[in-house]
Amino acid sequence: METVPIQEIEYRIRSFQGCLQEMELDGALILQNADLFYFSGTIQSSILFVPCKGEAILMVQKAFERARYESPLKHVILAAGRGQIKKVLNDFGFLGHRKIGLEMDVLPINLYSRYQQVFPEFEWSDVSDAILRLRMIKTPYEIEQIRRAAGILHKGYMEIKEIIREGMTELEVDGHLALIARREGHMGVLRMRGWNQEMTYAHVLSGGNGAITSFLDSPHGGRGNTPAMAQGASFRRIERDEPIGIDYGVGINGYVADQFRTLVIGELPDELRRAHDFSLEIHSLFKEEAKPGVSCADLYHLALKRVQKTGLKDHFNGYGEGKARFIGHGLGLEIDEYPILTPRFNQKLEVGMVIALEPMFVFPGRGIIGLEDDYLITDAGVERLTLTDQTVIEL
Amino acid sequence: METVPIQEIEYRIRSFQGCLQEMELDGALILQNADLFYFSGTIQSSILFVPCKGEAILMVQKAFERARYESPLKHVILAAGRGQIKKVLNDFGFLGHRKIGLEMDVLPINLYSRYQQVFPEFEWSDVSDAILRLRMIKTPYEIEQIRRAAGILHKGYMEIKEIIREGMTELEVDGHLALIARREGHMGVLRMRGWNQEMTYAHVLSGGNGAITSFLDSPHGGRGNTPAMAQGASFRRIERDEPIGIDYGVGINGYVADQFRTLVIGELPDELRRAHDFSLEIHSLFKEEAKPGVSCADLYHLALKRVQKTGLKDHFNGYGEGKARFIGHGLGLEIDEYPILTPRFNQKLEVGMVIALEPMFVFPGRGIIGLEDDYLITDAGVERLTLTDQTVIEL
Repeated sequence: METVPIQEIEYRIRSFQGCLQEMELDGALILQNADLFYFSGTIQSSILFVPCKGEAILMVQKAFERARYESPLKHVILAAGRGQIKKVLNDFGFLGHRKIGLEMDVLPINLYSRYQQVFPEFEWSDVSDAILRLRMIKTPYEIEQIRRAAGILHKGYMEIKEIIREGMTELEVDGHLALIARREGHMGVLRMRGWNQEMTYAHVLSGGNGAITSFLDSPHGGRGNTPAMAQGASFRRIERDEPIGIDYGVGINGYVADQFRTLVIGELPDELRRAHDFSLEIHSLFKEEAKPGVSCADLYHLALKRVQKTGLKDHFNGYGEGKARFIGHGLGLEIDEYPILTPRFNQKLEVGMVIALEPMFVFPGRGIIGLEDDYLITDAGVERLTLTDQTVIEL
Repeated sequence: METVPIQEIEYRIRSFQGCLQEMELDGALILQNADLFYFSGTIQSSILFVPCKGEAILMVQKAFERARYESPLKHVILAAGRGQIKKVLNDFGFLGHRKIGLEMDVLPINLYSRYQQVFPEFEWSDVSDAILRLRMIKTPYEIEQIRRAAGILHKGYMEIKEIIREGMTELEVDGHLALIARREGHMGVLRMRGWNQEMTYAHVLSGGNGAITSFLDSPHGGRGNTPAMAQGASFRRIERDEPIGIDYGVGINGYVADQFRTLVIGELPDELRRAHDFSLEIHSLFKEEAKPGVSCADLYHLALKRVQKTGLKDHFNGYGEGKARFIGHGLGLEIDEYPILTPRFNQKLEVGMVIALEPMFVFPGRGIIGLEDDYLITDAGVERLTLTDQTVIEL
């Protein structure tokens, strides 16, 4: 079992303490799995207290020995209930009126109420945005995990092209992608932070199914096989000469890579092939223009301006109400991280950001086409982390 | 695509309105996917308003046409933002001071704050417990979906026993289970309501890995292959004469079935075989004693008393800090539903409850053994919904 290096955890805690000091907070309680893993190296049922200076304390409900093994933190303490948490904090001298941060974007109301009752003297603030902005910049260790995840995706595309046959259902293809992912070490979940957002391991979107709009904040959704999930693969059988869009995600040591390729048995219709070529053009534009200091909103507008010169603008990143308002997103411990390439996100690119760029084109009744790759922002511009050189994968 | 029958939705809304009236609330806003699906038949990005009497209104952000198709509700209205939601409610006459229910066990703090700002005149209450108690009693339609999910599980066990070979990794077995599940129509997610609880499609737990405690509130956890997920299958290779525990879940039209079987290549060690037989004895005890009117806590104590007469009590449903404090749980749209067979749950059994009974035995270093089946509470007692007659599956 690979645990998170101590240097990583120390660096992340120290950076977060800088944020807490800037926000004039005395500390923060971290509870959500992705954040807990980021700052402590474990998701064992715990509460992490990060003071604005000094050492963090991981208070574990279950499983204690495992948390001690997984987390490189110095203070890993068994504390089964909220009462015990109060005692531990008291023992470490955190008493009286304190300003404390919480992940208010994800913490449920009832859980918050219970903390308010246990610590009536605390004054609470939201630190979720600060955490997400820290997590936006990846360390070399984190980038290495994303590269490994990308390696599995590449293997998956190369293997699935030998498996897909005309008449196979989307769900069967999805199942094979799940088999490959797990066999190679995919951790078994793709975390999303957004409220009510849920993802299957892959979206297999053949022909007209690829153009079906879903609740997801994404250019693609798919029909799925039940309104209870309403996304991804269905029992539709794959046909010749239609796009088979495969959006595929896997996670290694928490970190996700995310890729989209269009596959086809036979040939793509000309109009769709042209749209696909234009997706590649947007990737080239991004590779030329994206560098530290360029704003996310500007990159979005640049791409949109290029699209508006073509006849494809109605199809870009969704059709009708299915249009997504972004062309790329950060990813790491969650799939929906900062930065977002959208008009409302003025953040400038920085070295260490990882962005999944997904310029897609949707044709109602015919399908979805395009290409998604993950890029690292470097001093020199961008470096592709995903490994698949093939653009349209012909079967 | 199978949509939820209108009679189901009408019955559920009417029952919930009874709760709202009892709680003296004017209505409730429903936001979370599982609840939204339960009351509206769709998880398209929406807010459902259920007044204490009269007709419910589904306000859809995305995707509108799809929500109209999926939901049998009469009032399905496009309402993109919280401002529009206010307008729709005003148009329907819901103005001024109102007592409104929310799912406070799952709604994030920030989302709640935004609703408080949009509706400063509303007084908010928690209705999550009322919803969970409604969802606890299943209709024949819901039971049919669980039966279908159980059918896939049975197929999965019968198929995987032809696939597992000595030396195969747990992750490869897990991948094959995912392939079978998806190919047969598993919806692609197993929803859990509990804070930070997450599940892979299956837990494949061979030998000593089955005894490893995790953060999950479950008798089994498993090693997993990274502390970022910390459960389920790992790269461990399956050996002869050791238990291969497989906990397997799939969902059909939202409804989950959940089963555990022990598989073995060769023979189980005598002590583990005896523990397995004792797991069957607890199932027999349950089948004799469980009937409408019997309390969940009493059933728990009855099982525990039986276990305490044996030398197995230290191993029952976990070992050491890994001990789970329940022997069974409800399931439906989420895996962790009411009722819970635990000392703290005094609820009496009622016709229509579905319970996954999982008396397991954990032997540190050697593995986990036992059996989990799903039972429906009927007038006559219980009826098994899972289909696998084999107890230990020999390969």
